[in-house]
Amino acid sequence: MGNSTLDIKRLMEPGSVAIVGASANMESISGRPLKLLKRYNYKGKIYPVNPKYKEIDGLACYPDVASLPETPDVVLVGVRAELVPQVIKQSVQRGVPFAVIFSSGFAESDNQQAQDELIDIAKRGGTRILGPNCQGLVNFVSSIPLSFSASLDSDARPKGHVAYVSQSGAFGFASFAMAAERGVGFRYVVTTGNQADLDVIDFGMAFADDPEVRLLVMYMEGIKDGNRFIDLLSKARKRNLPVAVLKVGRSPTAQEAVRSHTAALAGDEAVWRTIFKQYGAIEIEDAQDIVDLGKIFGSPKRPKGRRLGILTTSGGGGIIMADRAYDEGLEVPELPDDAKKKIEEHIPPFGSSRNPVDLTAQVINEPEGFASSVEAVIESPNIDMVTVVVSMITGESGYRVAQDIKNIFHKSPKPFACCWLINREQGGRFLDYLREGGVPLFQSPRRCAWAMSKLYESSRMFEEEDKVEFKRRTGVLKDYPARLTEYEAKQVLAAYGVPITRERLCENLNDALEAADEIGYPVALKVMSPDILHKTDAGVVALNLRSQEEVRNAYGRLMEKASKVTARENIHGVLIQEMVTGGLEFMIGVKRDELFGPIVAVGLGGIYVEVLKDVSLRRAPVSKKEAEKMIEELKGYPLLAGARGQNKKDIGALAEAIEKISILASIEEDLQELDANPVFVFDEGYGIKAIDAMILRRGPQ
Amino acid sequence: MGNSTLDIKRLMEPGSVAIVGASANMESISGRPLKLLKRYNYKGKIYPVNPKYKEIDGLACYPDVASLPETPDVVLVGVRAELVPQVIKQSVQRGVPFAVIFSSGFAESDNQQAQDELIDIAKRGGTRILGPNCQGLVNFVSSIPLSFSASLDSDARPKGHVAYVSQSGAFGFASFAMAAERGVGFRYVVTTGNQADLDVIDFGMAFADDPEVRLLVMYMEGIKDGNRFIDLLSKARKRNLPVAVLKVGRSPTAQEAVRSHTAALAGDEAVWRTIFKQYGAIEIEDAQDIVDLGKIFGSPKRPKGRRLGILTTSGGGGIIMADRAYDEGLEVPELPDDAKKKIEEHIPPFGSSRNPVDLTAQVINEPEGFASSVEAVIESPNIDMVTVVVSMITGESGYRVAQDIKNIFHKSPKPFACCWLINREQGGRFLDYLREGGVPLFQSPRRCAWAMSKLYESSRMFEEEDKVEFKRRTGVLKDYPARLTEYEAKQVLAAYGVPITRERLCENLNDALEAADEIGYPVALKVMSPDILHKTDAGVVALNLRSQEEVRNAYGRLMEKASKVTARENIHGVLIQEMVTGGLEFMIGVKRDELFGPIVAVGLGGIYVEVLKDVSLRRAPVSKKEAEKMIEELKGYPLLAGARGQNKKDIGALAEAIEKISILASIEEDLQELDANPVFVFDEGYGIKAIDAMILRRGPQ
Repeated sequence: MGNSTLDIKRLMEPGSVAIVGASANMESISGRPLKLLKRYNYKGKIYPVNPKYKEIDGLACYPDVASLPETPDVVLVGVRAELVPQVIKQSVQRGVPFAVIFSSGFAESDNQQAQDELIDIAKRGGTRILGPNCQGLVNFVSSIPLSFSASLDSDARPKGHVAYVSQSGAFGFASFAMAAERGVGFRYVVTTGNQADLDVIDFGMAFADDPEVRLLVMYMEGIKDGNRFIDLLSKARKRNLPVAVLKVGRSPTAQEAVRSHTAALAGDEAVWRTIFKQYGAIEIEDAQDIVDLGKIFGSPKRPKGRRLGILTTSGGGGIIMADRAYDEGLEVPELPDDAKKKIEEHIPPFGSSRNPVDLTAQVINEPEGFASSVEAVIESPNIDMVTVVVSMITGESGYRVAQDIKNIFHKSPKPFACCWLINREQGGRFLDYLREGGVPLFQSPRRCAWAMSKLYESSRMFEEEDKVEFKRRTGVLKDYPARLTEYEAKQVLAAYGVPITRERLCENLNDALEAADEIGYPVALKVMSPDILHKTDAGVVALNLRSQEEVRNAYGRLMEKASKVTARENIHGVLIQEMVTGGLEFMIGVKRDELFGPIVAVGLGGIYVEVLKDVSLRRAPVSKKEAEKMIEELKGYPLLAGARGQNKKDIGALAEAIEKISILASIEEDLQELDANPVFVFDEGYGIKAIDAMILRRGPQ
Repeated sequence: MGNSTLDIKRLMEPGSVAIVGASANMESISGRPLKLLKRYNYKGKIYPVNPKYKEIDGLACYPDVASLPETPDVVLVGVRAELVPQVIKQSVQRGVPFAVIFSSGFAESDNQQAQDELIDIAKRGGTRILGPNCQGLVNFVSSIPLSFSASLDSDARPKGHVAYVSQSGAFGFASFAMAAERGVGFRYVVTTGNQADLDVIDFGMAFADDPEVRLLVMYMEGIKDGNRFIDLLSKARKRNLPVAVLKVGRSPTAQEAVRSHTAALAGDEAVWRTIFKQYGAIEIEDAQDIVDLGKIFGSPKRPKGRRLGILTTSGGGGIIMADRAYDEGLEVPELPDDAKKKIEEHIPPFGSSRNPVDLTAQVINEPEGFASSVEAVIESPNIDMVTVVVSMITGESGYRVAQDIKNIFHKSPKPFACCWLINREQGGRFLDYLREGGVPLFQSPRRCAWAMSKLYESSRMFEEEDKVEFKRRTGVLKDYPARLTEYEAKQVLAAYGVPITRERLCENLNDALEAADEIGYPVALKVMSPDILHKTDAGVVALNLRSQEEVRNAYGRLMEKASKVTARENIHGVLIQEMVTGGLEFMIGVKRDELFGPIVAVGLGGIYVEVLKDVSLRRAPVSKKEAEKMIEELKGYPLLAGARGQNKKDIGALAEAIEKISILASIEEDLQELDANPVFVFDEGYGIKAIDAMILRRGPQ
């Protein structure tokens, strides 16, 4: 498995396996692991362990792990929960490197303590645990099943290029079985259950080292450490390995169910979406998605762009495919003239050489026509991938078309898929022929278009990784109290280079008058107190003060108001601030997510964020370049770019400020929440300025 | 077929059928119609027509239609295009009511003329035509195939409750065959091809009269008359018949393909969406949707609400189902305590009696537990429909679960579906058992949730139909020129009761001064000319004039500017208008769609429409109630409802204005485009006022 943090070679390819709780009834759950090992012709040693038997199915059976003639690489454990600790104790004593625990009755049954004790035993002795409450794993490269799943009780050996790690055993093996039967090939399937020790990330990390893995699929209910997930995505990205993640627990009800089903944190949906997008994971939702991605990523061909060539034997099928490709963000461009000419040699007048190419059902009367038309599209320089949509072509013609498609697929240097709309009674043999021939085969234009769009998107994901460099290593926030005043929050922003308003904190009226003279009228006056978070609501803000007299009046009035809501000693003074006008209101916020740390949110101020929820999110840090993408994603972006006759705003300076705040958020480990709002964005070349800001530190407020 | 516009009884249930171009080679396309009629045990008379034969397969063969011993109800025509007119001529002479023309070589081959001539012959003689370039039809009620589709060459007779009309023959029969094999039952399948005479709407109308039809599915590339489509949806709504429409040609490329494939108008995507939503059609996108809706609507049970009960044998499967149900707008509510108690009697500690109920795989060891748990959920008063998600349950346990599910489905008074995640090798016999037992069976939680959400939405669609009553019958627009000035446009609005600014059209300066005095300062002055559509851009608007002097100056300046862009005789004068402030800007627009007539668009003014594209659409007319829904749909709605400390705006008056403008659009047949923008919406109780307006009449501008 190469150079990963965890060496799982002895788990995935054990030289010997002990089966604790083995049953002589090969059809029972405890009998099946042995049955499957034999059915898969496992070449290593098998040691059934059960004090009830001397022998099972011709193999010597041992009373316990302690009595085994050698130390097995893996111990499979299927005994009752209360017997498991003893098995693990003996395994630890024997120096067994891996135990796979099928048994339930631990955290998932509200018995966290039993699980903790178990892991404690294992950790002290160095035995790594898969499970408990898992269904084990299967390695198709070496044909080794360490599982009791009925889905493996088959002669099919769907060896291929997908590695699949699922927290859920039942869903994992069910979706595996459906995918395998629909033509998807697998290298490894691992189910992790309660993940008391090894989890989906551990296996993802290990499989990312295997160059033969072309797609990593993960089913996750929750994780404990968001950073490790991001590390995995970064590692996968470095070797162009697409990672498809089915993260369940999105709905409120399902989050409850996840909590009762495992012990892990389900997390916030919008944040997970952000992480997927930012770090390049394919978000999936269903068993169907595993099947369809497995088909299309099984072949190593990757598209250079998003331009899809479509050929069809049925006008309708081609049009639907074009519509669905469009929905999925693909392009269906005009073909070059020479390709069209080649195609026109073969099609009747009611066909069409435009993309989608309608070959018509007459193609079945012209053996050469089909293949050379498809090849003409594949060879077109402005086409990145090709789909053929076949409808009810049956009999010998169907068989010929199927043969052509298989040959074309294997010759094609570009990604190629087939969508054949037919029932099994009429077309089953063609479908099976194509599937067995390795052709990505769909029976739904929408699913085919979706899978091809993911092929394109995942190729694009690898193009560039966002890099943010920063020198500062230690924060400044530790010197501040739990709730910062506006003045303090802006001092922190300024420390990271974010432009703020000219302003001065003044302890008394004389200071304030002096500051106002120095800053220049008009000024704003705000009372600073950590007890007053919403200054305007509390009436402790006066704007547009134009003279010493106005400053004096405001000072008296506001200090009186402030003293009604908080004690005098909690008032730090008043802030005298320049009045700034003419900027477009923007907001830059940060919130610390329990799983993934600081998440940066940006949006146009006022109604855009509050009413229209027009916000774009990233995990900190983000580079200036990525910050520009965040800005461009906003629906209100045209207002910054100069819509409706307005001047273009200083997007560069805004992006820099976002980068700086994201660096602040990365460095300041104490930061719980930050809100720079409004940030005024001036015309291009004139920069930005944070007008108001709020910062909360972690811990009790 | 009852009391529809078109009586298609003799087409759908012919007493006799002639097959023109019948071949003795029963495997060829021209041999298949006869083969299929025999295979389906057609009880009527069959007359093969082909001068080459005396007899085909034991049936007397006739040289032409003229020589037939009786007038058949239907003539099937499969001869070359150039021979078709002669066949139709003879059919007309014999008084044949229906001809089904399979032959291609007409409009789809750029031979519109041949098609027009053909229809001309048929129309004059009263023979109705299905096709040309179609694949015919099949009636499963009476077991009559009038088609050559290979998909019918089967012993399967999937008789059920779906009526399917498809413009595309190849796609229609392919998707039918896939659906039939996956458990969907059909009453009729009709393919209409070029639709030179009978079209999908004709059949939809006829099938809507059949009370046994529970779902009408339509595949449409384009239509010629949008009103007939709306009539069909209204008719279907009256009898609670859901209509699912696959409208292709959404993408720009596909629109081109539709044009080259048929001659119909693909239409604007946003308008189609609006029509579907407003008149209650289910928008579908793929063959998969036909399959999945067919399964769920095949049963007559309909939900009262959107609350889904989920039970699962695998925690993961249940969580995914809950997530997908949430995505589709369904609710997964907490179960009542007594239901939970019943369930808890049967499940192990690691199960869960919360919705989604996790029965765990242990349910297979407790025969009673499964059925009584599912029944407890079905009986819960706060549950409207129920789904069971089964994973890899195999062997005898699987069979028992399958039997339970079938029994529960048939007993359940509420909609019920099963989602079984398993491969065919392990679970094929359970899947087949359930399918044959009529249970809506899915292998994807997402598809199951989608189909159940459509069941809910379609029940809801029928709750209320929008009714708009208006007395006025004749328009006023005919008295105006092609381009109306602001003044004229607002006069038209006023004629329909829409509040407009106080204003007067003045021919000279004295008039203007008098008008300003009368209206009261400040006033606006605008030059009125049909040649100046964008008045502000042309600089012929002066606002906030506060005195006679200012009016005088503005008059001189603006008339001079106007005379530079248009001739003096095209200047109608100046409009003196009250200045209005304090309203929220809104816009109400109308555009005439080629297919569906006037479409009303409303949105908040300025950036909301222009930058954020925050617009809601309906076909005119819309009632005040529906107009309120349009307003509520806007993302900016909170601004009208009183967000951010603002007063609530007069939504009632705004909705009334929308209703009135929609009535205007319905009555004024000449209206091409209308734009009331801005419309100021004042605080609640203070009404609205149209500040500016633009109207274009149809025809050359």
